[in-house]
Amino acid sequence: MSFQYLKPNKSTKFKDRHTTKVDECVSPYEEGMQGDVGLVGLPFSKTSISASLASEAPAAIRKALGSYSTYSGERDKDYQNVSILDFGDVPVHPTDTSETLERLKTSVKEMIDTEACERYIMLGGDHGVSFPSISAFQEKFGRIGVIQWDAHHDLRNIDDGGRTNGTPFRSLIEAGVLKGEDLFQVGIRDFSNAKAYADYATNHGVHAYTMADIDDHGIHFITDQVIQILENKVDCIYLSVDMDAVDQAFAPGCPAIGPGGLTARELLSSVAKAAKNPLVKGMDIVEVDPSKDFRDITSRLAAHVMFRFMYN
Amino acid sequence: MSFQYLKPNKSTKFKDRHTTKVDECVSPYEEGMQGDVGLVGLPFSKTSISASLASEAPAAIRKALGSYSTYSGERDKDYQNVSILDFGDVPVHPTDTSETLERLKTSVKEMIDTEACERYIMLGGDHGVSFPSISAFQEKFGRIGVIQWDAHHDLRNIDDGGRTNGTPFRSLIEAGVLKGEDLFQVGIRDFSNAKAYADYATNHGVHAYTMADIDDHGIHFITDQVIQILENKVDCIYLSVDMDAVDQAFAPGCPAIGPGGLTARELLSSVAKAAKNPLVKGMDIVEVDPSKDFRDITSRLAAHVMFRFMYN
Amino acid sequence: MSFQYLKPNKSTKFKDRHTTKVDECVSPYEEGMQGDVGLVGLPFSKTSISASLASEAPAAIRKALGSYSTYSGERDKDYQNVSILDFGDVPVHPTDTSETLERLKTSVKEMIDTEACERYIMLGGDHGVSFPSISAFQEKFGRIGVIQWDAHHDLRNIDDGGRTNGTPFRSLIEAGVLKGEDLFQVGIRDFSNAKAYADYATNHGVHAYTMADIDDHGIHFITDQVIQILENKVDCIYLSVDMDAVDQAFAPGCPAIGPGGLTARELLSSVAKAAKNPLVKGMDIVEVDPSKDFRDITSRLAAHVMFRFMYN
Amino acid sequence: MSFQYLKPNKSTKFKDRHTTKVDECVSPYEEGMQGDVGLVGLPFSKTSISASLASEAPAAIRKALGSYSTYSGERDKDYQNVSILDFGDVPVHPTDTSETLERLKTSVKEMIDTEACERYIMLGGDHGVSFPSISAFQEKFGRIGVIQWDAHHDLRNIDDGGRTNGTPFRSLIEAGVLKGEDLFQVGIRDFSNAKAYADYATNHGVHAYTMADIDDHGIHFITDQVIQILENKVDCIYLSVDMDAVDQAFAPGCPAIGPGGLTARELLSSVAKAAKNPLVKGMDIVEVDPSKDFRDITSRLAAHVMFRFMYN
Amino acid sequence: MSFQYLKPNKSTKFKDRHTTKVDECVSPYEEGMQGDVGLVGLPFSKTSISASLASEAPAAIRKALGSYSTYSGERDKDYQNVSILDFGDVPVHPTDTSETLERLKTSVKEMIDTEACERYIMLGGDHGVSFPSISAFQEKFGRIGVIQWDAHHDLRNIDDGGRTNGTPFRSLIEAGVLKGEDLFQVGIRDFSNAKAYADYATNHGVHAYTMADIDDHGIHFITDQVIQILENKVDCIYLSVDMDAVDQAFAPGCPAIGPGGLTARELLSSVAKAAKNPLVKGMDIVEVDPSKDFRDITSRLAAHVMFRFMYN
Amino acid sequence: MSFQYLKPNKSTKFKDRHTTKVDECVSPYEEGMQGDVGLVGLPFSKTSISASLASEAPAAIRKALGSYSTYSGERDKDYQNVSILDFGDVPVHPTDTSETLERLKTSVKEMIDTEACERYIMLGGDHGVSFPSISAFQEKFGRIGVIQWDAHHDLRNIDDGGRTNGTPFRSLIEAGVLKGEDLFQVGIRDFSNAKAYADYATNHGVHAYTMADIDDHGIHFITDQVIQILENKVDCIYLSVDMDAVDQAFAPGCPAIGPGGLTARELLSSVAKAAKNPLVKGMDIVEVDPSKDFRDITSRLAAHVMFRFMYN
Ligand SMILES: [Ca+2]
Ligand SMILES: [Ca+2]
Ligand SMILES: [Ca+2]
Ligand SMILES: [Ca+2]
Ligand SMILES: [Ca+2]
Ligand SMILES: [Ca+2]
Ligand SMILES: [Ca+2]
Ligand SMILES: [Ca+2]
Ligand SMILES: [Ca+2]
Ligand SMILES: [Ca+2]
Ligand SMILES: [Ca+2]
Ligand SMILES: [Ca+2]
Repeated sequence: MSFQYLKPNKSTKFKDRHTTKVDECVSPYEEGMQGDVGLVGLPFSKTSISASLASEAPAAIRKALGSYSTYSGERDKDYQNVSILDFGDVPVHPTDTSETLERLKTSVKEMIDTEACERYIMLGGDHGVSFPSISAFQEKFGRIGVIQWDAHHDLRNIDDGGRTNGTPFRSLIEAGVLKGEDLFQVGIRDFSNAKAYADYATNHGVHAYTMADIDDHGIHFITDQVIQILENKVDCIYLSVDMDAVDQAFAPGCPAIGPGGLTARELLSSVAKAAKNPLVKGMDIVEVDPSKDFRDITSRLAAHVMFRFMYN
Repeated sequence: MSFQYLKPNKSTKFKDRHTTKVDECVSPYEEGMQGDVGLVGLPFSKTSISASLASEAPAAIRKALGSYSTYSGERDKDYQNVSILDFGDVPVHPTDTSETLERLKTSVKEMIDTEACERYIMLGGDHGVSFPSISAFQEKFGRIGVIQWDAHHDLRNIDDGGRTNGTPFRSLIEAGVLKGEDLFQVGIRDFSNAKAYADYATNHGVHAYTMADIDDHGIHFITDQVIQILENKVDCIYLSVDMDAVDQAFAPGCPAIGPGGLTARELLSSVAKAAKNPLVKGMDIVEVDPSKDFRDITSRLAAHVMFRFMYN
Repeated sequence: MSFQYLKPNKSTKFKDRHTTKVDECVSPYEEGMQGDVGLVGLPFSKTSISASLASEAPAAIRKALGSYSTYSGERDKDYQNVSILDFGDVPVHPTDTSETLERLKTSVKEMIDTEACERYIMLGGDHGVSFPSISAFQEKFGRIGVIQWDAHHDLRNIDDGGRTNGTPFRSLIEAGVLKGEDLFQVGIRDFSNAKAYADYATNHGVHAYTMADIDDHGIHFITDQVIQILENKVDCIYLSVDMDAVDQAFAPGCPAIGPGGLTARELLSSVAKAAKNPLVKGMDIVEVDPSKDFRDITSRLAAHVMFRFMYN
Repeated sequence: MSFQYLKPNKSTKFKDRHTTKVDECVSPYEEGMQGDVGLVGLPFSKTSISASLASEAPAAIRKALGSYSTYSGERDKDYQNVSILDFGDVPVHPTDTSETLERLKTSVKEMIDTEACERYIMLGGDHGVSFPSISAFQEKFGRIGVIQWDAHHDLRNIDDGGRTNGTPFRSLIEAGVLKGEDLFQVGIRDFSNAKAYADYATNHGVHAYTMADIDDHGIHFITDQVIQILENKVDCIYLSVDMDAVDQAFAPGCPAIGPGGLTARELLSSVAKAAKNPLVKGMDIVEVDPSKDFRDITSRLAAHVMFRFMYN
Repeated sequence: MSFQYLKPNKSTKFKDRHTTKVDECVSPYEEGMQGDVGLVGLPFSKTSISASLASEAPAAIRKALGSYSTYSGERDKDYQNVSILDFGDVPVHPTDTSETLERLKTSVKEMIDTEACERYIMLGGDHGVSFPSISAFQEKFGRIGVIQWDAHHDLRNIDDGGRTNGTPFRSLIEAGVLKGEDLFQVGIRDFSNAKAYADYATNHGVHAYTMADIDDHGIHFITDQVIQILENKVDCIYLSVDMDAVDQAFAPGCPAIGPGGLTARELLSSVAKAAKNPLVKGMDIVEVDPSKDFRDITSRLAAHVMFRFMYN
Repeated sequence: MSFQYLKPNKSTKFKDRHTTKVDECVSPYEEGMQGDVGLVGLPFSKTSISASLASEAPAAIRKALGSYSTYSGERDKDYQNVSILDFGDVPVHPTDTSETLERLKTSVKEMIDTEACERYIMLGGDHGVSFPSISAFQEKFGRIGVIQWDAHHDLRNIDDGGRTNGTPFRSLIEAGVLKGEDLFQVGIRDFSNAKAYADYATNHGVHAYTMADIDDHGIHFITDQVIQILENKVDCIYLSVDMDAVDQAFAPGCPAIGPGGLTARELLSSVAKAAKNPLVKGMDIVEVDPSKDFRDITSRLAAHVMFRFMYN
């Protein structure tokens, strides 16, 4: 084409020739492609207990990728060759919830069955999406261990409202998809849970680390311990990052915010340490509601969580 | 591809089979294409007198197109076949202003030289972009008449700061591109201009209609009058819509807001009436600063201004 | 109790002895009570096409009642004796949509079956709640006429997503609850609907008044005409007020905002005129999303819509 | 001084040599100066019924003056020679209310006793400041007539809370400062007042024009009528502009907002018409709370109210 | 009643049968009731030096209680049996400050004289409410020690403005209610105080710990030290938590925000440690202005401060 | 003058006789004055890569000075005698970039040539202003060492866009103004830079400390080390504080925000430590965009950075 400056359908964002922005490494998946990390959006939050627009997070987090580059100075390594294949968003049915859950599981399964990538990232949505997502991983990879960064146990009963965003891990345990002893919860916060569910955790062997544990032992020690236990017994490790594990000052855009949580630096180094383990195959990031955020601070943090997962 | 639900690189926004959203009629221009309306972004606001991020408007207005459909019930006509060719945004040089102005003019000229469309829409940017844009139209089409909806004359002297967003029409007159008598200004507001520039208007034959004129005669009467005069003497009519012609309640996202301006309904019907004339070849929409807006109200109004221009 | 100032469980808001705030006329319904207006919240917006927290509107609108008094100076009449019985909110199932729709209809029916009041107000929620609500009224009162203030027809097909907030009136017509000819739509806006649905309206005898009709004839003339036609053929009239009929400057808190709509004064006088008719038994107010609002402007307008309905 | 560009203590805001901004016509008053309009801030809102930061309005409105120029194109007249003498703000006592009221009255009186100007503008604060301000004017000028643009009567009893912002006109009537028949209220709104106070108005001869009156007769007719009655019986006319007379869409920054009020254009033309009368000596503008505003829209409207008062 | 779903006057918020939200443990006080913690609102901020709507904090903090549960996983203890008796808010006189201060003291005294609870929480309001509140506690319990978390000394002179929110502790010392040596200030910040008041503190034996002290010794060490000194000499300990002790990132909703303060985790663990001492009888939380906050972050932190005080 | 309370042209802000606010120590520079710290605004951000209103920061930061006092309790020292001479803002040309850069350098040079002060503070603007500013210092003082707190290297090539805010330090090195080995960068963040520029740093001897370095060694250790190296080889040290070195939770108002940065306390103590060295002659604070901030949190932090620099 003969235009001097115009590039229809191309970005005109300023481009420094030496800088690769992370979003430049993202390609829409096409049949037969091979890449390093698969990415899929699970934009569903209609079954959140409190009204939530976490369904808008996949778009916000993808957009945040464009604000950061692929280079880690700390390791002096440029990850520009880590290719990200974007499988798009699962279309949500406007009115039929179980149809949507089925679509989520089917789509995650189809994605990992392509064997296009080593690892996959699922962007929620609320925490309810972990139920279909982890189910798909377990079907594919066998015995699954889960590290869940979260202020909450998410082990509520199903009777009081069906498969809400408070129930995914109970649903997984009761469906036999996940053993209680293979679930590790990091960042559990006081006055944010019920005794019945802490007891449920204990009774089913779930390992829960509270903020007091983190204050006492440090996030590094705890993360190391979790990985050490898990790597000896499971076939695959899945990371599930509920952003409300982080203090409301660092992640103001989650529906269920509160004080006393992790700092951004604690979360990032913990995810980075866990993601080093080769058994780790997938990660979801959930409970980011862009409509409640300020300057996309929470989506930007989510993007950095992705970097610590992808770039090791 | 074998996915049931996933469509990598495709939108999963809810789609009603009978509704065509305006953004569905937009295609990136490719060589040789023919369409009805050409669209180009002129995202430049670095020479605004007051700090402005009007450079972000092309993206915001394009996005607003996706919130509305192509059907006019008032005329019972669906404009889904009006094709919009998007020529993209002109890349702005980060530091070199005159280079940018050159790129703007060149790109608008190249776009209309394709003769791909009957009409063109230029999305600013601040009002400074009308100088290169109108210059390009004049080169192409000959004697040009301009209807400018604006609270301000934009006839400032060049000495006090160069080609700012307060100068485009003076620059055009002094460059011989536009005759004063071919410029019609609608919505000029009290306490928003200087006497020297009102005098300049008078002395150069510029026709200025104030809000008092509109209160007295009605926007319909005035618009009819303007068109009637213009159609007999020019080769081409260009509409220049500075959104600050509208009252701050209806367009809170302009840099220079104030009370006492047009209502949204007044602006829309005035543009619709003008756009009916076949001499009208181009329109720019300027001075929308999305960073100052609330819920994209001003960008949504700008999108409707586009509809009144395109759908006649 | 012996406290001088403390009143546990009582408001300490400033009280002028001569002013009755509207919320003081609201009592929770108890069996056997009789009142003038019944009020119920239908806080459901999970099946909105675009993500919506309109579910938070009943609380926001009820709260806005406390900002206004019962006295109309225009008629020099104090409506402090108009008692409002509040039947509470229908509890929404977190995950089961059809269960929720059933609950909504059952609850509205139970409320009007108490025959506790002459008239009832239903606070949505999105426009989807009109389907169960109008169904309940039709079962109770017989042939029902509906005046719908709305920018949109809400006559979408059900196949593309089930009973969303775009479908209520089609659902009602197809379920035989409402005849097309008994439905009057006021404020239909250009570029906000699809031709297929305008055609559906025409083919089913639905009367649609566009903004151009209102510009041409005035809202008073149109409202009078609607009422005149309806009162001769139906047993009961139901008002359905989608707040997005109003221009985005006056109702910024609706999900589907746009320019060119009714002013607040047009909506209020139109509802007041309609509500004068004794056949009017119910009104819903829908599509107010407090999370998108500024200073509860849209909820305050909704409260005034209630006043025009209740105080005649 | 030898700096090329720096001007310590001087603004570096862009200056067009032909434009006079209104704030350039403002000088701090010094003994012996003569000017056209005196300006004083009465930044007091601690006795507002609802929590209010209207105390911040004088600063916000003064700042808004800098966004507009002295030239009226509608009359082709530049008011750059209308000098504004700024007497500063009355210092408010942090804890002693009656001391503050005394300071307000004393300071307004001292200001007008300088006889430095023909007319004065008092910037509130809440409407409570009109009590000391009008008292000072009455002492100086004799029998005083007041035109009050307001959604509310402000005739509450004093017993329920002392001299709040709901009481100024009752306080004035009962103190014998103002006769009821000399008070004209424009814009009184339904559901925003109590019958007892409407009755009080009637019983004391206060003239109240409701929004229905304005819809029926037009703001021009009503303003003319008010002025005609007043000019024949009083020594001096005082304008009191409570910005909440304006609809919440045009003045979102008032504490007691609501729908159905005046448009900005209605208020501005009404004030302009009234201010033409030579008996008009003073005007206050009250109930602008900048902390509740959006983009200073309400302060900008207040600035334009000043222009219509000053420039005649 | 025969409704299936409706519960007039009852919340329909989602309820998990195993979770007790803290607000479920709150009952309005009625004569003769016994409980664990008494709660009263002191919604007064009219004498703040800078304009403040801290008067709205009691409502915001009470509402935040509903977002959290009674269970501490760190101690594996459910505090659902800790009953909170709510004595309501003290009604503030709209215009008479000394009347209000009298009401505050009287009401706190009346509340503790009921001997209904072991401990009491007073929700400000600005810090000025600590003067009447601590006075009431001293009258009841004898020699009183105060731990004040605050960026500021609050020991200003009374002459420059009366009993503002900068004076409570000086007022208490000079009224003989509190000995200087019994006052411990934690979190005093640089560039936020005057030397005269630091000197006043020193001269009256007040113990002030700066942020540098906390950086050097840790918040745990300092809290332990304070408690150790106090428990040997006073009859009762009162905690006074000015939320501006916390860094502006964690408590953006205080009027006097700044950087370099405590983290949320530092404040919470310090309050928890202090509250363990049985001499602690009361706590106030002050200087939360919800109108300045983002997503009620500061009110949520205040709620957690309450949990650390109540649940030991 | 005879007014009792009014003070035309004087602030009526509450004044405590014992408190000196920092802004009270600021005087506009007049020829011949001597002071301690010179202050100048460099309000230029038109060449930022992403759209930026950092040009509004000098006003916002100066205003924040008025919120804090001159007294440090940590050192028990009142700095009220540290006089700040304000040289005003350099007027920016509306359209001519190189003219503006020339003005910035000339003005900084003229300011330091007055030898009115020991130290100078330059308030940006974006980071591009460091190029003219440091050039001026180098001309005056000789070999210059720079400590740059920043998430980014700012060593981009000039070809891709001219002298943007991503290039100042490369421009300085290539212009021979600054040796690479004399540049120390603190707070460099992962995924925020390109390998090419990290390599450029290494190849030119620039010392870069990443967030991992700070996590490992602590900010105190690193700051000490930097100062120790610098003081032995340069004639003058210049501090350049890009506020985006700080985590987005503590400095939300920077254009290029992200998680994982310094805390406010880390930045403040690091600047304080560096500023103790007598070779330090100047500091700039850049990349604060008040239009993106919340409650001026970032400007307030910038003010505290000034205090740590001025008060030693
Ligand atoms: Ca979760
Ligand atoms: Ca969670
Ligand atoms: Ca213009
Ligand atoms: Ca303009
Ligand atoms: Ca609708
Ligand atoms: Ca609608
Ligand atoms: Ca009033
Ligand atoms: Ca009023
Ligand atoms: Ca305090
Ligand atoms: Ca404090
Ligand atoms: Ca930088
Ligand atoms: Ca930077």
